[in-house]
Amino acid sequence: MTLDARILEQLFATIQGRQGADPDSSYTAKLFAKGRKKIAQKVGEEGLETAIAAVSEGPEGICAESADLLYHLLVLWADAGLTPEQVWAELARRQGISGIDEKNSRKG
Amino acid sequence: MTLDARILEQLFATIQGRQGADPDSSYTAKLFAKGRKKIAQKVGEEGLETAIAAVSEGPEGICAESADLLYHLLVLWADAGLTPEQVWAELARRQGISGIDEKNSRKG
Amino acid sequence: MTLDARILEQLFATIQGRQGADPDSSYTAKLFAKGRKKIAQKVGEEGLETAIAAVSEGPEGICAESADLLYHLLVLWADAGLTPEQVWAELARRQGISGIDEKNSRKG
Amino acid sequence: MTLDARILEQLFATIQGRQGADPDSSYTAKLFAKGRKKIAQKVGEEGLETAIAAVSEGPEGICAESADLLYHLLVLWADAGLTPEQVWAELARRQGISGIDEKNSRKG
Repeated sequence: MTLDARILEQLFATIQGRQGADPDSSYTAKLFAKGRKKIAQKVGEEGLETAIAAVSEGPEGICAESADLLYHLLVLWADAGLTPEQVWAELARRQGISGIDEKNSRKG
Repeated sequence: MTLDARILEQLFATIQGRQGADPDSSYTAKLFAKGRKKIAQKVGEEGLETAIAAVSEGPEGICAESADLLYHLLVLWADAGLTPEQVWAELARRQGISGIDEKNSRKG
Repeated sequence: MTLDARILEQLFATIQGRQGADPDSSYTAKLFAKGRKKIAQKVGEEGLETAIAAVSEGPEGICAESADLLYHLLVLWADAGLTPEQVWAELARRQGISGIDEKNSRKG
Repeated sequence: MTLDARILEQLFATIQGRQGADPDSSYTAKLFAKGRKKIAQKVGEEGLETAIAAVSEGPEGICAESADLLYHLLVLWADAGLTPEQVWAELARRQGISGIDEKNSRKG
């Protein structure tokens, strides 16, 4: 297994699999049960903790907080019915990549 | 080109390429020039805006704010000398995946 | 003039006087015109900046960010139709002070 | 007792009285024991929760979150050796009030 960004998609699939599960079965299932406001709050808190780590800790602390932030962001996407692909497409759009090979698209 | 999470790695490479560039050449170069505290603040602000969107907007608004958040998070990683791989490894560690095929590692 | 916490009430009155004013007449009037979501965002951002100052600056930086935060909090109260007195009453309630002279209330 | 903004000064005095106390004696003493980073985080979190309440709750929810935010802000001031008077002076300075009767100061 190559360790690359696609781990986010694996993690997202795991998270989706916990939607509707018994809240006592996992932290993720509990978060879904608590609902959107709680999930929103966690995303904001992890953004804050990443920011605090950024000015007060080294790369390891920033790495740990970034992982927490990404996890909670994926929970929000699942809760909102948003797919990772939609976010990648938005990032691609901003970079001027259409999702189709950029070079090819310029050949025309 | 397949549009998947690896767009984050492409975006990270683009961001890294702007470290040390003329601050007037791009928004990213300007952020690096402003330094860690400003970058930290932007990550926190985008986390906050994602949280506010989560309770007050639909999937499209959440998608746009998530893209902003991810972009600024990547800028922070570059500024902190942190690679995406280190964050994927941290996420993998938490999922109980060692970066080596999990099944194989259990064969032993 | 004694300089005490009642300056918050003076500031609140000033802020209220700008509700509905021409957005170009002051920063406060502009904030009201932008509406609740923008005001909410500013309160969150100032909380974040105060937190960042708390771990990276001395008392003067914390003082300046606290003043920013209090100002935006008062704007939110005005926008929400909340009076300072309601917040003082909430703080008093938590401290076990009923808003009536505590000693008197114990005389019974 | 008149219920006005000076309750913040009373609350600040109570908070100061808990600096250095047994962490098990009160929530405030525990916060001081945890240190600056934890206090910073709480201020940021309460700012975030106030912002979320601002877009998703009515005046009562905003009032409760504002009280939480003010309490944690006072804990930060005490921890940073900052007095409320310094913050009122900063707010006064911004309003163009020097802490001395403004009219008097204009007589000169």
